[in-house]
Amino acid sequence: MKAAVFYGPGKKLKFEEVPTPRIGPNEILVKVAGCGICQSDMEYIDLGVPTVKKPPMILGHESAGIVSEVGSSVVDLKVGDSVLLGNIISCGSCRNCREGRDNICDNWIMLGNHINGAYAEYIKVPARNAYPLPAEIQPEDGCIIADAVSTPFHAVKNRSGLTLGDTAAVIGCGGLGMNCVQIAAAMGVSVIAVDFNIPVVTGSPKTKLQAAMEFGAYKAIDAKKGKEVVKEIRRLTGGGVDVAFELIGRPETILQAYQMLRPGGRLVVVGFCPDNASFSPGRMMVKQLEIVGSVSCCTADMPRIIELVKNKKIDIKPLITGKFPLSEVNEALDVVRKGESIRTILIP
Amino acid sequence: MKAAVFYGPGKKLKFEEVPTPRIGPNEILVKVAGCGICQSDMEYIDLGVPTVKKPPMILGHESAGIVSEVGSSVVDLKVGDSVLLGNIISCGSCRNCREGRDNICDNWIMLGNHINGAYAEYIKVPARNAYPLPAEIQPEDGCIIADAVSTPFHAVKNRSGLTLGDTAAVIGCGGLGMNCVQIAAAMGVSVIAVDFNIPVVTGSPKTKLQAAMEFGAYKAIDAKKGKEVVKEIRRLTGGGVDVAFELIGRPETILQAYQMLRPGGRLVVVGFCPDNASFSPGRMMVKQLEIVGSVSCCTADMPRIIELVKNKKIDIKPLITGKFPLSEVNEALDVVRKGESIRTILIP
Amino acid sequence: MKAAVFYGPGKKLKFEEVPTPRIGPNEILVKVAGCGICQSDMEYIDLGVPTVKKPPMILGHESAGIVSEVGSSVVDLKVGDSVLLGNIISCGSCRNCREGRDNICDNWIMLGNHINGAYAEYIKVPARNAYPLPAEIQPEDGCIIADAVSTPFHAVKNRSGLTLGDTAAVIGCGGLGMNCVQIAAAMGVSVIAVDFNIPVVTGSPKTKLQAAMEFGAYKAIDAKKGKEVVKEIRRLTGGGVDVAFELIGRPETILQAYQMLRPGGRLVVVGFCPDNASFSPGRMMVKQLEIVGSVSCCTADMPRIIELVKNKKIDIKPLITGKFPLSEVNEALDVVRKGESIRTILIP
Amino acid sequence: MKAAVFYGPGKKLKFEEVPTPRIGPNEILVKVAGCGICQSDMEYIDLGVPTVKKPPMILGHESAGIVSEVGSSVVDLKVGDSVLLGNIISCGSCRNCREGRDNICDNWIMLGNHINGAYAEYIKVPARNAYPLPAEIQPEDGCIIADAVSTPFHAVKNRSGLTLGDTAAVIGCGGLGMNCVQIAAAMGVSVIAVDFNIPVVTGSPKTKLQAAMEFGAYKAIDAKKGKEVVKEIRRLTGGGVDVAFELIGRPETILQAYQMLRPGGRLVVVGFCPDNASFSPGRMMVKQLEIVGSVSCCTADMPRIIELVKNKKIDIKPLITGKFPLSEVNEALDVVRKGESIRTILIP
Repeated sequence: MKAAVFYGPGKKLKFEEVPTPRIGPNEILVKVAGCGICQSDMEYIDLGVPTVKKPPMILGHESAGIVSEVGSSVVDLKVGDSVLLGNIISCGSCRNCREGRDNICDNWIMLGNHINGAYAEYIKVPARNAYPLPAEIQPEDGCIIADAVSTPFHAVKNRSGLTLGDTAAVIGCGGLGMNCVQIAAAMGVSVIAVDFNIPVVTGSPKTKLQAAMEFGAYKAIDAKKGKEVVKEIRRLTGGGVDVAFELIGRPETILQAYQMLRPGGRLVVVGFCPDNASFSPGRMMVKQLEIVGSVSCCTADMPRIIELVKNKKIDIKPLITGKFPLSEVNEALDVVRKGESIRTILIP
Repeated sequence: MKAAVFYGPGKKLKFEEVPTPRIGPNEILVKVAGCGICQSDMEYIDLGVPTVKKPPMILGHESAGIVSEVGSSVVDLKVGDSVLLGNIISCGSCRNCREGRDNICDNWIMLGNHINGAYAEYIKVPARNAYPLPAEIQPEDGCIIADAVSTPFHAVKNRSGLTLGDTAAVIGCGGLGMNCVQIAAAMGVSVIAVDFNIPVVTGSPKTKLQAAMEFGAYKAIDAKKGKEVVKEIRRLTGGGVDVAFELIGRPETILQAYQMLRPGGRLVVVGFCPDNASFSPGRMMVKQLEIVGSVSCCTADMPRIIELVKNKKIDIKPLITGKFPLSEVNEALDVVRKGESIRTILIP
Repeated sequence: MKAAVFYGPGKKLKFEEVPTPRIGPNEILVKVAGCGICQSDMEYIDLGVPTVKKPPMILGHESAGIVSEVGSSVVDLKVGDSVLLGNIISCGSCRNCREGRDNICDNWIMLGNHINGAYAEYIKVPARNAYPLPAEIQPEDGCIIADAVSTPFHAVKNRSGLTLGDTAAVIGCGGLGMNCVQIAAAMGVSVIAVDFNIPVVTGSPKTKLQAAMEFGAYKAIDAKKGKEVVKEIRRLTGGGVDVAFELIGRPETILQAYQMLRPGGRLVVVGFCPDNASFSPGRMMVKQLEIVGSVSCCTADMPRIIELVKNKKIDIKPLITGKFPLSEVNEALDVVRKGESIRTILIP
Repeated sequence: MKAAVFYGPGKKLKFEEVPTPRIGPNEILVKVAGCGICQSDMEYIDLGVPTVKKPPMILGHESAGIVSEVGSSVVDLKVGDSVLLGNIISCGSCRNCREGRDNICDNWIMLGNHINGAYAEYIKVPARNAYPLPAEIQPEDGCIIADAVSTPFHAVKNRSGLTLGDTAAVIGCGGLGMNCVQIAAAMGVSVIAVDFNIPVVTGSPKTKLQAAMEFGAYKAIDAKKGKEVVKEIRRLTGGGVDVAFELIGRPETILQAYQMLRPGGRLVVVGFCPDNASFSPGRMMVKQLEIVGSVSCCTADMPRIIELVKNKKIDIKPLITGKFPLSEVNEALDVVRKGESIRTILIP
């Protein structure tokens, strides 16, 4: 089969012939219909963040496709089924998995990191890691559910404690942030979006804040206001938001998000921040504040998210700003590098 | 009546005659049976932390006594009743009060801070702020329920998320920490206590770690081991505790407590820390960790705590290491200053 | 002032002059702008369900208006404010109130039942029982929030355990049921509405099932299908709904609602059912099912509901199918008796 | 190997030679150390409740033993390990399993019902269904954890919502009920035990109510008081218990348990009741009561329970009232039939 092989940081990916994977009794082989390019892929390629499987290897963890072969023990899937592939393979047996928190499985394996991913014509995965897609969702679009939708979904549904009529702020409206906005709004939360008011994609007449309003925010605040942002949010909400989501991963914005909480409020850290951040534990105690992390998504939620996309309660179309044939992977990466994209998809 | 009046930071308290308070229709007058000396009282007196009511005023927020007069609208209490006085008076009408979180009432008033407290023969409070004590609990002992027991009770029951069979670490085994140990143990949690292995009270043959074991800890670790403490806890628990309570209020011990959490674990900040603390949001995200503050106690829990003390599931006797007549308040404060006490009580 | 006085079951209400109430220090006097006629009012009048205050007395517990006088201790409200009046006055001091469950206050007092209600020009209530209405909500419309909206709101938000992407069935689409539909839909739940497909109001071209679809249901099933309803719901949802709401109050429909649950599902009993109902505890155990009651609404939610109505996430206009001057109260009751109404409002 | 084979209802079990099971790659073979006789086994044998696997087959689902062979893919266990065997094998892939509720797995398989059980020298199970036992727990005693302890553990920890200082009633103090008592007490709950005050085992000087007190109940009430039981519990608790557990499985005792709830209280149905029960939905609504089922135990809790038994927070020794060699299985069944036992264990 053809694949875009990663030979190490700083090198162009090579579109070349590699052996098609061979499946075991509990696995399936999937013909990839589409694979999103995630920010973490850029970190492997451009920043040297190491993959667990050493290069040469195949990246790509946001994929969907058509089942082309099923292992001898597989009963729930058959050749021809359209499936979404979870980005993380959990063990199903550790304490966290058994408690329904398989997003922090003790033994998790990530596609396109621990093992070969979906920048390829075919990929193999355990059957339990594939979720049927209905006819209403084309797999070349649906692939972005596997990370760009599921990660904020988990943050909003499982980690925020938000409920009908609460208020929330979303700091950073890229792919994940925009989905935080629309998912929280779909739960009946009043969402304030914060980002710079720049075009969504280079040359687009629509700005990020306009897009956030279309995705359901009731207010959008330009991040260039700096320290005034916190004041404005406290004023709009009569004392602070119930929950703030931080998606940028910088100590300054984490602090800012912390400051906009009402007493009893919660900050959810969704963006990866490599540096240490500082906070006031005294204020945390007196105001009974909370800071919690959120990573990936529980697999139990995958069918639920697919259903919400099918029923149009979550809209994925506007998130896809470009599609490239897999053979043009390096051109696609360039587009992502320039920030000219919400989500760019590779089509093998 | 006689009272120990606070004339400002650095000054000795004056035991003198002051007017007995006059009550309104919804209030009661209580003859104080005992009032604990809290660490925050020491901060007003020695460190200059300001009280809201300007000196001269009367400190003391950990009290119990006998009802000596009831307002015209009071129906549930009568003269002669033995009552515990909540340390915080909540408004009952703000969002937080109505949601059952009156510990973060928007309009809270603290005895011995916003208004006169219980270093006095008599104190007046709203009737709804007094909780009947059964005959099994002497009010001169029961007074410590109002803060030394109720604050850790809230942290353990309402803020930790602990459940039967979980593991917890308590960092700092003073009055509040020792109660964290016994309350978590009473819930069926396996508790590891951490403190220096010094005598509980000067000259006592019993050390803090011995006391923690008697209060229900299943392990006690000497804090002088420094960085080895985290390693030992991770080893004992097979990867970290479900919950760590920090009661010291120092950035270093907050960081240490954070590091001893298992994936998905929670740090509860109970001690007041005036300085900023630093943490890794990246680790928080990837391991899905949580840091939450805890302050005071919800009033709904007061009758519950009284019942647990009555039924001996919470033991208060060993926490009381000294009693002084109110006229000797300055001698009592000296004992607390020397750290020679778990809880010292003033008897008017 | 003028009021419609209730002289006992089976008698016409008398529109006559009565003394205007006089307020105490913590109370306000409100000029009633509108008061909804609730099904429970009909039960007092037609079925002889007794009111706690003996007739002659004034009914009406779903009201809003303009503050015309404030007691000497009232600080948050002033003359001219537009306010919603909670239908239940809670004590604020019992265990349930302190725990945030004041809908089951030990000492609750209901307007138009324990004390005089709002079928009158003026009503007095404790200030803490009035919730400011923003300019966007006219009090003569907003009055229906006090029961027709708040009761299903509580059932959906606090009693169902529903979350984003769950499925629910609503059995009975009158005023409360229709709000169950729209509130659950506003939380991102897939709602199936069940009722007879009759006109919403006599002569209306719109049927109940059409209205339910407009309020956000994704399916509506005609109740005349009888036993097929359960089968159809189980088929549509792949095994049963997460939650069923029963709003009719009949043993047969309670049983039907119980049978449409998926394993682990919950039935919420919202409608008042005077008769005993039967269920299979064996099935409850093996499938781990749940049946829970829901009554009235926690007062903490009132400002939240008002905000959702203001933001159009809850739509109240289509629920109001008629308005009558208070002097024509008996004509208005006739309309309700004929079932020709979702909600009929009296305007003093 | 030798096994006690079940040939159908009403027939004596035959102790005879059968083929030793052969394991697959993910399975282990376990030399059975002990297997408890459960009430459901009696129902297969005496009442004709059908097993899924048709007789001749091997009963027994409450077992522990020593690993004697491991499949080629098994990594966590090795020959010689002491293990507890879960009574239910869950699929790990259905929605309920992924959500941490594998006790209601869509595809569950029960030992000694769907497949051969542990009334035998050897049994095979999937490796993920075996939980290591520490040296402190002998497997011939520990076997009772698999059902007699784990089923009430789930009811108390996961289904009751009980927390520190709550009150509970346990109706029926057989093996499961006695564990409800001790597990709720271990969580800091005040437990009232209800049963007839008969000897625990024929001829024993200790009665059930005495045993319940030793297991941590703070009150024990003789069931022969009939209707007075509810009144006494309401009096003792000032209005009713927070939670009642029903373990008898009869409509009358379910109703009785329902009547002893305080407003907002919950009834947990743990005993299997084949008949329909009746309740008042009107009272459920007005008092906001709850009835929930509880079945088996989530596998995530197994290591937790083992740890609690190891730490003596749950005491299993007094529950074991008899041990018989497997060859004398029919004599052992006779003892259980006579009710002369809390738990009787077969030793192959």
